[in-house]
Amino acid sequence: MKKMQEKIQRWIKGNRQSSIDFLGELVQAQSTQGDEEQAQKIVERKLRSLGFDVDVWEPAGDELLDHDYFYSPRTDFSGSPNVVGLMRGAGGGRSIILNGHIDVVPEGDHKQWKDHPYSGKIEDGKMYGRGVTDMKGGNLSLLLAMQAIKECGIKLKGDVIFQSVVEEESGGAGTLAAILRGYKADAALIPEPTNMRIFPKQQGSMWFRVHVKGRSAHGGTRYEGVSAIEKSLLVIEQIRQLETERNERITDPLYERTPIPIPINVGVIEGGNWPSSVPDEVKIEGRMGVAPDETMEHAKQDLQRALDKLSETDAWFIEHPPALEWFGGRWVPGTIDLEHELMNTLVEQFRSARGSEPIIEASPWGTDGGLLSNVGDTPTIVFGPGVTDVAHHADEYIVLDEVFACAEIVAFTLLRWCGVVENGG
Amino acid sequence: MKKMQEKIQRWIKGNRQSSIDFLGELVQAQSTQGDEEQAQKIVERKLRSLGFDVDVWEPAGDELLDHDYFYSPRTDFSGSPNVVGLMRGAGGGRSIILNGHIDVVPEGDHKQWKDHPYSGKIEDGKMYGRGVTDMKGGNLSLLLAMQAIKECGIKLKGDVIFQSVVEEESGGAGTLAAILRGYKADAALIPEPTNMRIFPKQQGSMWFRVHVKGRSAHGGTRYEGVSAIEKSLLVIEQIRQLETERNERITDPLYERTPIPIPINVGVIEGGNWPSSVPDEVKIEGRMGVAPDETMEHAKQDLQRALDKLSETDAWFIEHPPALEWFGGRWVPGTIDLEHELMNTLVEQFRSARGSEPIIEASPWGTDGGLLSNVGDTPTIVFGPGVTDVAHHADEYIVLDEVFACAEIVAFTLLRWCGVVENGG
Repeated sequence: MKKMQEKIQRWIKGNRQSSIDFLGELVQAQSTQGDEEQAQKIVERKLRSLGFDVDVWEPAGDELLDHDYFYSPRTDFSGSPNVVGLMRGAGGGRSIILNGHIDVVPEGDHKQWKDHPYSGKIEDGKMYGRGVTDMKGGNLSLLLAMQAIKECGIKLKGDVIFQSVVEEESGGAGTLAAILRGYKADAALIPEPTNMRIFPKQQGSMWFRVHVKGRSAHGGTRYEGVSAIEKSLLVIEQIRQLETERNERITDPLYERTPIPIPINVGVIEGGNWPSSVPDEVKIEGRMGVAPDETMEHAKQDLQRALDKLSETDAWFIEHPPALEWFGGRWVPGTIDLEHELMNTLVEQFRSARGSEPIIEASPWGTDGGLLSNVGDTPTIVFGPGVTDVAHHADEYIVLDEVFACAEIVAFTLLRWCGVVENGG
Repeated sequence: MKKMQEKIQRWIKGNRQSSIDFLGELVQAQSTQGDEEQAQKIVERKLRSLGFDVDVWEPAGDELLDHDYFYSPRTDFSGSPNVVGLMRGAGGGRSIILNGHIDVVPEGDHKQWKDHPYSGKIEDGKMYGRGVTDMKGGNLSLLLAMQAIKECGIKLKGDVIFQSVVEEESGGAGTLAAILRGYKADAALIPEPTNMRIFPKQQGSMWFRVHVKGRSAHGGTRYEGVSAIEKSLLVIEQIRQLETERNERITDPLYERTPIPIPINVGVIEGGNWPSSVPDEVKIEGRMGVAPDETMEHAKQDLQRALDKLSETDAWFIEHPPALEWFGGRWVPGTIDLEHELMNTLVEQFRSARGSEPIIEASPWGTDGGLLSNVGDTPTIVFGPGVTDVAHHADEYIVLDEVFACAEIVAFTLLRWCGVVENGG
């Protein structure tokens, strides 16, 4: 095993420049929603060149569109294919899904960027570009791990299913489509940018909207009306209190370092249309965090109950209860047993590669891991290079050394998890 | 005098139907902003038929547009003339300005109205239509009072200057233009719909906008950001506190029945653009009431000081003070001495006509009276038929009896105030 590991390390080192070039190519293929095809073709070519079985398809069909967990602002995925490559094992080993999304969030205002948002420019060991951290860097780690194993002549026992999916940034329809296509494994790994922390649990989230009612009046006699803005302050206060209550329930040590494990973020407020009128409606939109071991339904009930309670302290709400709706984004929480064998393996390989203890935490955001574990019945760990601080912002970058370090840890983990045919090389 | 009054009463009674027809014609001439010409032509014809000196002009010129008190969303008033009619007195009497605005607010959604918004339909002694209360009914009261005096062969000593102005609903540029044209008198009366209460003092108001800053972050790690929505709750709380302080200062008995004499209304709130992002900016818009004896400048300083104080309780505001701007609508407060002779005369005529004590209050809204008293040096009383509850709403109406009752009180007041040439008839 030691020898195989050294061989892999040498291979990764020796192919550093071509790998960086490949990542640059991936970044330059701007794969915002609806525009993923060029990047997926690059991935497909790479998988075919490695001799993998390759499956390319555009998500579609009623089973997907009518699925309880389907969420996307669109229903037509023409030109937005998923790409899956199968590195078939010799048999007798455990299988694994390696999942990474190819879609990137829009680059925003180009003037905010030092260079072109899709430059793939390298400076001080960092590559810059939209999507390089979230999550093409992580995808490269996966591809490199597989390629290194393959080119070092190592034969795994278990199957490795690499998934380059669309739609993660918009609710996970790409991964859901892969699950419905039948892809399943004994475990999964998603190299989202965790800054090399290991996330066995991922927070889910849902978007909500609350309509708060008032009664209009002229501003000069505002006491004749009821301000929906004043009432919405009470609603926000109630939401804040619910957040406190929900987080007091969280005792999981994985959340020890997190100030608010499952926040409820009020992101948008909008109400009234005339400075000198008492506003009769306010709309509040937000994101509710869902604990890794909680159902979406339970979280929904929590918020509804909190809003219902408002009428106990303010009679206005008896006749005019705030109307709650769930809309838009929805990310299923995910969790893997802390004693799961993939956890043990990953932690062990991390220790041996980095010479330090990994940080094990619960993620503050959702990933496709929720779908994989809850719908696809495939327990998932999230672990990857890059920091989320720079994702979704201008001048997104990744430290290239981390991509290679992650590739090495993933490769070593695959050897252990899938098992090696000893005379495979 | 008694005989003259009876003559006037008879005349008003005898001309009831033609007066109602005239009001219907005025209402049907839809005079929303920019579209006042047809209605003004009707007024002009009436004034000419009475043999008054008539002055018709479109407000314009730098003196107007650069005036400190000029406010309008437009600077071109082509097709929006002011009309002034002068009933010249015999001399030796006090002069008066009778001011009413011809512009009406937009009728809004036609489906909210039982009949066409400009029907002028009569039902149960009420005429319906946009602007019939605010304030074509009051304008008719003025015209009838003058016409009755004229047609009863009574000759006044003082001048009566009737002003049919544009732009009251948008900040008073019509009345300001009349003042700058040189119109001035010993006192003025504006028959805005006070429900026959006498308003010697009128509240002013100004619109403000406050920008509240935050710092963006992902909703899942909202503790890494600063929510502009949470900060704006503090700003609104501070504004509410300032409102309390300002109103505690009001000791004027005219405000005795008013729950909040000079309210600060927060009418609009808008902030954030993504449910799962911590919002980094919130905009608040509102209307600040200005006490009748207060300067606009003083009120402005009050609000600025209140916002400045926020940094004493929340350090965030030290580096990120809320930015205050004054924009849009601005209505100067107005006041007339309670012992002013026009007050005494009007109160006396009210008593004798209605057989009851008038309610004397301060208005909860601004009128062109502020401009007349503060810029035009003409102390002004606001008193007229109709209730503000129905103004600016669908199915606006006026009780016709009130229009005639007001006409009578105004006519009697003119006799007393301007003085009568005893052998004038």
